Amino acid sequence: MLEKRIRLKHLLDKVTDPDTACRHIQNGTNVFISGFTAGYPKLIPQALVRRAKDGDRFKINLFAGASTGDAVDGILAEAGLIAWRRPYMSNRGMREKINRGEIRFKDDHLSRLSAQVRDGGLGKAHVAVVEAIAITEKGHLIPSMSVGNTPTYVQEAEKIIIEISSEPPELEGIHDIFIPEDPPYRMPIPIYRSGDRIGKPSIEMDPNKVVAILYSREEDSCAVFNEPGTVSQRIAEHILDFVAHEIRHDRMPPALPWQSGVGDVANAVLSGFIDNDFFQNIDIYSEVLQDAVLDLIDLGKVRAASGSAMTLSHKARNRFFNEIYRYRDKIVLRPVEISNSPEVVRRLGVIAINTAIEVDIYGQVNSTHVMGSQLMNGIGGSGDFIRNGALSFIVTPSTAKGGKISAIVPMVSHVDHSEHSVDVVVTEHGLVDTRPLTPRQVAEQVIKRCAHPNYRDLLWDYYQQAIRASGGHEPHILSEAFSFHERFMATGDMQVR
Amino acid sequence: MLEKRIRLKHLLDKVTDPDTACRHIQNGTNVFISGFTAGYPKLIPQALVRRAKDGDRFKINLFAGASTGDAVDGILAEAGLIAWRRPYMSNRGMREKINRGEIRFKDDHLSRLSAQVRDGGLGKAHVAVVEAIAITEKGHLIPSMSVGNTPTYVQEAEKIIIEISSEPPELEGIHDIFIPEDPPYRMPIPIYRSGDRIGKPSIEMDPNKVVAILYSREEDSCAVFNEPGTVSQRIAEHILDFVAHEIRHDRMPPALPWQSGVGDVANAVLSGFIDNDFFQNIDIYSEVLQDAVLDLIDLGKVRAASGSAMTLSHKARNRFFNEIYRYRDKIVLRPVEISNSPEVVRRLGVIAINTAIEVDIYGQVNSTHVMGSQLMNGIGGSGDFIRNGALSFIVTPSTAKGGKISAIVPMVSHVDHSEHSVDVVVTEHGLVDTRPLTPRQVAEQVIKRCAHPNYRDLLWDYYQQAIRASGGHEPHILSEAFSFHERFMATGDMQVR
Repeated sequence: MLEKRIRLKHLLDKVTDPDTACRHIQNGTNVFISGFTAGYPKLIPQALVRRAKDGDRFKINLFAGASTGDAVDGILAEAGLIAWRRPYMSNRGMREKINRGEIRFKDDHLSRLSAQVRDGGLGKAHVAVVEAIAITEKGHLIPSMSVGNTPTYVQEAEKIIIEISSEPPELEGIHDIFIPEDPPYRMPIPIYRSGDRIGKPSIEMDPNKVVAILYSREEDSCAVFNEPGTVSQRIAEHILDFVAHEIRHDRMPPALPWQSGVGDVANAVLSGFIDNDFFQNIDIYSEVLQDAVLDLIDLGKVRAASGSAMTLSHKARNRFFNEIYRYRDKIVLRPVEISNSPEVVRRLGVIAINTAIEVDIYGQVNSTHVMGSQLMNGIGGSGDFIRNGALSFIVTPSTAKGGKISAIVPMVSHVDHSEHSVDVVVTEHGLVDTRPLTPRQVAEQVIKRCAHPNYRDLLWDYYQQAIRASGGHEPHILSEAFSFHERFMATGDMQVR
Repeated sequence: MLEKRIRLKHLLDKVTDPDTACRHIQNGTNVFISGFTAGYPKLIPQALVRRAKDGDRFKINLFAGASTGDAVDGILAEAGLIAWRRPYMSNRGMREKINRGEIRFKDDHLSRLSAQVRDGGLGKAHVAVVEAIAITEKGHLIPSMSVGNTPTYVQEAEKIIIEISSEPPELEGIHDIFIPEDPPYRMPIPIYRSGDRIGKPSIEMDPNKVVAILYSREEDSCAVFNEPGTVSQRIAEHILDFVAHEIRHDRMPPALPWQSGVGDVANAVLSGFIDNDFFQNIDIYSEVLQDAVLDLIDLGKVRAASGSAMTLSHKARNRFFNEIYRYRDKIVLRPVEISNSPEVVRRLGVIAINTAIEVDIYGQVNSTHVMGSQLMNGIGGSGDFIRNGALSFIVTPSTAKGGKISAIVPMVSHVDHSEHSVDVVVTEHGLVDTRPLTPRQVAEQVIKRCAHPNYRDLLWDYYQQAIRASGGHEPHILSEAFSFHERFMATGDMQVR
């Protein structure tokens, strides 16, 4: 098996066991790993945890593509092995330590991180630990289910540890690896269609930097998607109806590519295309490709789907692995600095759909901090797409916690995306296109159409009081702006009882 | 004179007087004007005001490139003739009416407006009113001191009114007019250096749409720059020292182009290059070019300066007009969707320097709303550059109103740019590079290095209380977050007396 996967034969000498390999990682090592919801190394994290349990005391600085789940972020955080983590995570245990200040975390726009690594802004790339399905005759890497920042990490690393995974060799050819030049003198990123391939199917690597190769039978932990519920379905319907309406009235060209964030609602939006006859030949230029993309390919509705990673449920993963040849020509996996490139996103005119924790009456968006202070996951690629897309949707169910939290609030408790970058606000109740409206008109419409009926009067009262007390272009009463949040923190319910 | 300026002879038949011309503008007309701090029409606004004074009651919807000053925004707002205004203004009288809700205003990222006009999102372009220095033999327009959105307005307008201004004919050749294709199928914008010319020196126009031509002797009202004061100079020094340090330590390439916002501080930053030996062959890829650019060209320090407009003091304007030939090869004036293009800004790796009303301890930025509600000017191009630049500085004097307002606050009262997009915070007291820091580290540094000494203890107290009361990734106490603002509104001073 390993003989087939390691095609540059002298590298077979580097095959070793995880406990030996992980000695290259010591206290203070900057560790740059593959992984972007999938495709992360599994053996080295386990070996590090074992070493810690054996009494070795050390902390590493961990950089990935994006989130890596329990198998990396979870177990390393729990073992207390992380000093720094960037650029994104979504693990509960890690989140708690970040919020207690025990793990240092900075939340980066995903499109920027590779360039920061290349310019040295994140310190030396001591060790790269990357999952691959094969090493080519030239000693280049074939990644697994994600690309993320791996090409740059491999290029910049002093030492490289490779985990050869057992995923099907037919994945070879799905990746498109292109590291852009760095400014000031560089050519455009030559992508003109979602499916354009501009690079190589493998990651260039200096084989002399490889210090260890491991053979892994571990699998990515799979995503669990809930069947689209009524709320997600309604949100998806609002979006598709709106876009179809805009196209029919000649206010949008018909073939703009779609980006949809990560999670149930994002998956539901793409699932919405399944029974929709208006949309055919769909282009997807997104970050993470989920189950719905496979469904749409099966139906012959996708022209091309570009992303940096595939996050599939167990069932979809099996389907994909059994018939990769059917999907491979439609799917392109790219480095995240390309999948999320502001240059390309703006050029293609991406329709961006991203979720929020909360949205305020003027369309300001909180994607990251619960009650203003507690980090949820991070901004991820949402800013790359929202700010530069041709049309940006922000979607959220109108309430959370069984109705005790309104996702529409007078003022969001943290802002990640400003009203200037958000075009359309959507909940299950309705949708507001903010583009032709003043902030006051936005407030009136968002309260009437997007807020949950239980909160409309409270929001309207705030807005009317703000007009009287402050006036201005965006009337606010600063002493009352967070009254919903304060009430929730005091009573566990944003509603007045 | 007019014979020389109107080189397509049959258009001479269209020469008329302002009062006749302005009859093409009626109640409800969407009027799209040239102008971006300079280069706006002067005669038609005056004629509209005269008509209103004679008893005609009407309101127009006014779209420009950016701000147009008293001669347009001021007199039209005062006369009550504006229903809608987009995308940016900086006029006191207009601002007051916007804040009272008497003029409808939406604050747009400047790079996006032309595309919205082309896709019909702003309604029909009934009448374009544009200043030009000449009409070519083919019937194309040579703009004056700005380009802004004029190429698209002229392309989309049903009727065109032209004000031929008396500015020197030698301006011809300074403009570079390129309307990008619209998505989804388009090629890159082919700019690889600040000075690249990719279009034509004139704006294409269908001469059959011209309904009136006026001859104007009115001049743009000139900018008044204050001699850089100590505060502006210190801010400039901090920025140039930092960038030089980064370049010397190989953390930045040496030739990234510079963008500097509008106003005294922005002008001071560029003036800082004058006595600085480290920086030579400077590329400027900015929005508005001010006096300092001419000084730097005189010193042979500028390789190329790109912008969408020139805003010069009276003195600099005379110098420029007397020797245009010396400056013309160094300066390129482009449509604002090109000068501010996220695609180009990201590709070139622009160093972006923009001013703020206030910044909070975590680096969130308020560029638009005083005390959360009252519009100041608008976001302008700051989001185009901050979000996509290679290195983004936010600059502000540490205090305003004689020390009664701290520009560093616990939480900004409105967010236009999130901490994820802002790299370096600068006041006259110092500078914090937020890129390698967690939010808590940013707070500590911003309080110590950027805040005015009179406010450091107050900010530190808030921050320490927030850690104790809320914890989290960005500790905040929502009930106290606006305490500085509330104190100012109650007592006229953010300090505790």
